[in-house]
Amino acid sequence: MAKNLTTREEDYSKWYNELVVKADLAENSGVRGCMVIKPYGFAIWERIQAELDRMFKETGHQNAYFPLFIPKSYFSKEASHVDGFAKECAVVTHYRLKNAEDGSGIVVDESAKLEEELIVRPTSETIIWDTYRKWVQSYRDLPLLINQWANVVRWEMRTRLFLRTTEFLWQEGHTAHATKQEALVEAEQMMNVYSDFVENYMAVPVVRGTKTESERFAGALETYCIEALMQDGKALQAGTSHFLGQNFAKAFDVKFANKEGKQEYVWATSWGVSTRLMGALIMTHSDDNGLVLPPNLAPDQVVIVPIYRNDEQFDAVCEVSEKLMKDLRSQGVRVKFDKRDTHKPGWKFNEYELKGVPLRIGIGPKDVEKGTVELARRDTLTKEFVDAVDVVSKVKELLEEIQSNLYKKAFDYRAEHTTEVQSYEEFKDVLETKGGFISAHWDGTIETEERIKNETKATIRCIPIEGDTTPGTCIFSGKPSERRVLFAKAY
Amino acid sequence: MAKNLTTREEDYSKWYNELVVKADLAENSGVRGCMVIKPYGFAIWERIQAELDRMFKETGHQNAYFPLFIPKSYFSKEASHVDGFAKECAVVTHYRLKNAEDGSGIVVDESAKLEEELIVRPTSETIIWDTYRKWVQSYRDLPLLINQWANVVRWEMRTRLFLRTTEFLWQEGHTAHATKQEALVEAEQMMNVYSDFVENYMAVPVVRGTKTESERFAGALETYCIEALMQDGKALQAGTSHFLGQNFAKAFDVKFANKEGKQEYVWATSWGVSTRLMGALIMTHSDDNGLVLPPNLAPDQVVIVPIYRNDEQFDAVCEVSEKLMKDLRSQGVRVKFDKRDTHKPGWKFNEYELKGVPLRIGIGPKDVEKGTVELARRDTLTKEFVDAVDVVSKVKELLEEIQSNLYKKAFDYRAEHTTEVQSYEEFKDVLETKGGFISAHWDGTIETEERIKNETKATIRCIPIEGDTTPGTCIFSGKPSERRVLFAKAY
Repeated sequence: MAKNLTTREEDYSKWYNELVVKADLAENSGVRGCMVIKPYGFAIWERIQAELDRMFKETGHQNAYFPLFIPKSYFSKEASHVDGFAKECAVVTHYRLKNAEDGSGIVVDESAKLEEELIVRPTSETIIWDTYRKWVQSYRDLPLLINQWANVVRWEMRTRLFLRTTEFLWQEGHTAHATKQEALVEAEQMMNVYSDFVENYMAVPVVRGTKTESERFAGALETYCIEALMQDGKALQAGTSHFLGQNFAKAFDVKFANKEGKQEYVWATSWGVSTRLMGALIMTHSDDNGLVLPPNLAPDQVVIVPIYRNDEQFDAVCEVSEKLMKDLRSQGVRVKFDKRDTHKPGWKFNEYELKGVPLRIGIGPKDVEKGTVELARRDTLTKEFVDAVDVVSKVKELLEEIQSNLYKKAFDYRAEHTTEVQSYEEFKDVLETKGGFISAHWDGTIETEERIKNETKATIRCIPIEGDTTPGTCIFSGKPSERRVLFAKAY
Repeated sequence: MAKNLTTREEDYSKWYNELVVKADLAENSGVRGCMVIKPYGFAIWERIQAELDRMFKETGHQNAYFPLFIPKSYFSKEASHVDGFAKECAVVTHYRLKNAEDGSGIVVDESAKLEEELIVRPTSETIIWDTYRKWVQSYRDLPLLINQWANVVRWEMRTRLFLRTTEFLWQEGHTAHATKQEALVEAEQMMNVYSDFVENYMAVPVVRGTKTESERFAGALETYCIEALMQDGKALQAGTSHFLGQNFAKAFDVKFANKEGKQEYVWATSWGVSTRLMGALIMTHSDDNGLVLPPNLAPDQVVIVPIYRNDEQFDAVCEVSEKLMKDLRSQGVRVKFDKRDTHKPGWKFNEYELKGVPLRIGIGPKDVEKGTVELARRDTLTKEFVDAVDVVSKVKELLEEIQSNLYKKAFDYRAEHTTEVQSYEEFKDVLETKGGFISAHWDGTIETEERIKNETKATIRCIPIEGDTTPGTCIFSGKPSERRVLFAKAY
């Protein structure tokens, strides 16, 4: 089944890049580091958006929209924030082009220089908290539970489709609360919303945890995260939710009158997931034949491919196919019926395998005669003939089975690739030979974390919320450790 | 019923600005010309998006996403395009900030200057056609029917919330076709999709037409448009759909092999509507008490406000209200039940009037006793008591009635404010005293159009598709005129 794809064993990174382009998910554009998300890739992103948006609204959040540009001075107001983002941002300095006087083409019009430079948002805390100052006066105005779907720009030097691009799409939630406790509950809630979504829709198991101080978001007091494990043994941070304390409220002077009429600073959270999730989806389930999509997110859950040699056969096959399509749709199944005559069935089989459609139904003249259809599963690459009268119920059953099978496979892979180690030697050995998550004791210092990172490229992915909390001895320094944390090489 | 709103008669423009802010639709941000779309305003925009997106998909279009940035050189490739947009664009010149050496704060890092400047997209034809070159090889790849929901930036000098902002949200469709005829059909189809949407959901009647040469989109051979009339007698362009010929295909070298294997340039269209539609919605229906929303677009079609003096009354009223909310929701009605005890019923009545909720239901202890509710219509400001058992059917009936009443009112207003004139004197007189659309003969020259515009500020809004096509004499030049066109002062 040659898809002209490099195999994962040959070169995982090359396999990924080829798959993204060949399955029509995304491609590089003429703009350095910026991708074009192609219609099929975007359709998956739309499903991610729709489900998350529903979950955000169910937990009381509303959408709004804030400016793309952030005045330079806003950045400087929160010290760690500017350190985190100033080194990789797109700066707008002028607002006009003109024809060059020497006729050499279009140039920047130097007479149209901005008084203050504008930064293309890398994240929106500063512009949003500048706005919240106007929205919050009294405890009655709290909590503010707001989300934004937007594009952001971070000037990354090395980019990869979906995983790290200069511009990417994301959602960013920004909430304001009257108490520290309420903000902490919100930050934790959103981590849980993310893990629910990623596990139940994307079929990607995640570890929920908190980041160490050095891995926290610029300006956060606590960063909650969900970490997934890819097929090559590297971890991928799939979503983060930050408890920001009163840092932004103080930087932007956002106070409220409490019930006693006393002025207090507001407590904040922010949380986000991005088109990076597409990378996690691909690298969790796909194989050497192409993409494998979980039914809950697949734009087309089922594709029907007609098989025929002449017009008469075509008509008979189409009649059965169209009826089946209708029946499936009436049961809420997303079905595509590909009756294009510009492409042969074999080509289509290949195409939908490459694009990861969970179930393929082939219907030929013999099937029409016998009252059967051929059902092919993308996840197991198995086929069976099914009685036409049973197809609808069989399809629904299989879609559920595929969804849970994908999750189980990924879960088992992660279990096999999570290793508890007792020494630094063992740590380095596991990291080299097997990869995956490594659960190890750490003395809690930034110094040790940094040295392990420099020597092995492994970082602390998180301090897991569930997991072993018995104290021990740091594998690196031999100093006391409060509990085990999770290390891995990461995307 | 003081809403602290300036009345429309006092100062229409001031009324508009106040209404947008007070009804929680949008507000100015700290970034020049960029607005914050507040949650309530954004909820309306989300409804606009959802309906349009459905209509686009039903007509065979798919969504995709293209980069925010456009390299400067792309711009120069289509001559009229660069003329149209170069004078008002945000230019990214650097990709890093740093701490100033003299300690004066954060400054642009001059060592991080881009080799080629990037323009923040004012529209995406150039970056998209640069991509289409890779996507189109054969007639089998056509048509390409793609839409993008995005933010765009045009450096407007005078901005107004929703109507003209530096950054705005929009959708832009970009299609590629094998034949001229097919592209023309597409451009016309999308104008019709827009007029269907604007008339049936926004309840705003529009005139469909084509633009004169001087009013066309930069790079288009034909611009189809829909034009609406606002309450102050000024026109507002609500959507445009462009037939681009082969201009962009030639500029970006996009060719395909036709069925005979011969290379041909592709034919193009583009079409868009933006957050400007929010302005049209507001200025068509709203009154001195605030926003008036058509039920088909209102985030909340019905609000239930409980009226009570003590806990016992509250419990009884809530029980009835919650049952009613459930009944209405099961019928697909969007209902909000506002049982906050931080605000009095009178305050809530005012609030929902200001926010344009089509129907308000008041339920007090006496209603519970008598088995009635009070139903108040936002459009007519009339109230009636309705038997509780009839409420659901009455609500559904009224929502339909309000929707068609709003359309009818706007339609009648437009009919009264569309005047056929025979002379330039009459033209100027009508423009001064009455405003609105003026149907007049025009000689078809750019010169006459320009002189009328300079003298009166009225522009040709469109050459209507339906309407009087008898020839006549130009009101300005006295030269022959092929047919009447529609003039107006415009937003």
